[in-house]
Amino acid sequence: MTRLYNDPTDFKEEMLQGFVAAYSRYVRRIPNASGVVALGAPKPGKVSVLVGGGSGHYPAFCGYVGPGLADAAAVGEVFASPSAEQVYRCTKAVSSGAGVLYAYGNYSGDVLNFDMAAARCEAEGVEVRSVQVTDDVASAPAGEEGDRRGIAGDFFVFKVAGAAAARGDTLDRVEALARHANAQTRSFGVAFAGCTLPGQPAPLFTVEPGRMELGLGVHGEPGIRSAEMRPAREVAALLVETLLADAPAPKGLPRAAVLLNGLGSTQYEELFVLYHDVHALLVAAGAEPYQPIVREMVTSLDMAGCSLSLMWLDDELQSLLDAPCASAAYTHR
Amino acid sequence: MTRLYNDPTDFKEEMLQGFVAAYSRYVRRIPNASGVVALGAPKPGKVSVLVGGGSGHYPAFCGYVGPGLADAAAVGEVFASPSAEQVYRCTKAVSSGAGVLYAYGNYSGDVLNFDMAAARCEAEGVEVRSVQVTDDVASAPAGEEGDRRGIAGDFFVFKVAGAAAARGDTLDRVEALARHANAQTRSFGVAFAGCTLPGQPAPLFTVEPGRMELGLGVHGEPGIRSAEMRPAREVAALLVETLLADAPAPKGLPRAAVLLNGLGSTQYEELFVLYHDVHALLVAAGAEPYQPIVREMVTSLDMAGCSLSLMWLDDELQSLLDAPCASAAYTHR
Repeated sequence: MTRLYNDPTDFKEEMLQGFVAAYSRYVRRIPNASGVVALGAPKPGKVSVLVGGGSGHYPAFCGYVGPGLADAAAVGEVFASPSAEQVYRCTKAVSSGAGVLYAYGNYSGDVLNFDMAAARCEAEGVEVRSVQVTDDVASAPAGEEGDRRGIAGDFFVFKVAGAAAARGDTLDRVEALARHANAQTRSFGVAFAGCTLPGQPAPLFTVEPGRMELGLGVHGEPGIRSAEMRPAREVAALLVETLLADAPAPKGLPRAAVLLNGLGSTQYEELFVLYHDVHALLVAAGAEPYQPIVREMVTSLDMAGCSLSLMWLDDELQSLLDAPCASAAYTHR
Repeated sequence: MTRLYNDPTDFKEEMLQGFVAAYSRYVRRIPNASGVVALGAPKPGKVSVLVGGGSGHYPAFCGYVGPGLADAAAVGEVFASPSAEQVYRCTKAVSSGAGVLYAYGNYSGDVLNFDMAAARCEAEGVEVRSVQVTDDVASAPAGEEGDRRGIAGDFFVFKVAGAAAARGDTLDRVEALARHANAQTRSFGVAFAGCTLPGQPAPLFTVEPGRMELGLGVHGEPGIRSAEMRPAREVAALLVETLLADAPAPKGLPRAAVLLNGLGSTQYEELFVLYHDVHALLVAAGAEPYQPIVREMVTSLDMAGCSLSLMWLDDELQSLLDAPCASAAYTHR
């Protein structure tokens, strides 16, 4: 249920105003736009990283704006892409002259709007590149990786792009590293219950009680199949085996950044119980979990469920992951 | 619902093992004890801060163990105090010879067990002091502050104590500052739905649909009253007015650290909608919100609801709040 709201039509705007009021030490509102920009951005000579998408996924996307991470976020209505006009305004606000990288999850509405904004910015002399995150292995088979949706793997791609831009990499290089991070990242999720939009009496989509949906999208998009709810250790095996079977080439990289992400109402304690087995299974398979993160990083309102993401690391990705950053939702030192 | 578990009787132990596996960059398991200690602790000559309580409240308590915060956490079963034996073992593991401060929420089971452990440690020559957090204004009236429960204000007290210990303060001074932080902190919460223990088919306690419980405890302890669910702006006014009416003397301090804490299944977006009005109301009343935190800091499994905490700041509390720290759940730089 969504319980705390005033007029549901104001939900996104009041959310954004509340976010900026709380975290004015990291962000300011972009005037006349549904978005935020990091304090001190744009920085002359530095590539800017603009992330974005629908609301309802906090900390994605505005929670990741700050030094060493994203420079700005374009914020759409709940589960809806920001409009091309909004993305355009955010781009203009964050453009430093060194180029802007768009990084966002691969959904048709987002692709349409970010592409329209990019074309308009390019016509005005602002160089823009786009990387769509495609980490969800449940959304298209191997060989069609480019058609996959972006889910919690968003975070790894944003972190790599943000760190590369912060150290002064060129737009070419920031884009290439973000693409590389995406190519090395795989996620798979399970859902136990749907979520409810502000003002609605019933969930947007449902999962039958006692069952789990494998690969269900964070907006209710179709997954792979439905199954009876199983003990945590069997859920862990399902997540790990699915991701290991889809590990990117070269297969020789044993070290993987790990994110076990809660979707909303699944408890942290449940995630740790699950991680207990995830960790053991990864190690048993010869993988080396690197600096695991177990928390809510890309949510879906109050949906119950979780996803496991692995980013298979080389030395450069690891160093970019390790670089310090600060933001409302993720600070690393 | 709690869905991800194996044998419910193993829930806490598997949770703790999963936590340590994920966050071995911050903590290690205390051998033969239900607790964790920070890497590098105990540090000779440094006061150690030991926090603890029942499970089900993550990030409280083990999520706050790391440099600049707590040195160790004793971890009880879900919603149950750690035993005196466990607290004793954790104390021995974290004792440096400079003294140990216990900081935990004021619940009778915790007080009993921490006190028994303290007596045993003192008999063995380990100096122990205890500070019970009593921030929940709904749990006892003004004039009986010492009888109040500890809820999300725990975090502010832990942060102040951890920062004082990290800079080398004596046990006397760390204790005095933790008491001062507690005396300056007030919280008030609302709940919209109860939570369910692992393996149980029904919630541990319930809130009638369409209603909210004011001041309901995080384990279902009685609150002040039940009310019809209201728009977010009225909930904000209720929280702010209740805390302003109970502000500690001296009344002249305008600056307050702010924590708007989600209990579990309440969405981040809802918290920001609420904070939009909380912030405006605080400012209108002449208060200065300082570095607000809007997230889940002390939860109650998947309970729906939130609490507002204010710590009224003087210069020293502010500098201790600002000091850098790192842990699984809270990093500040």
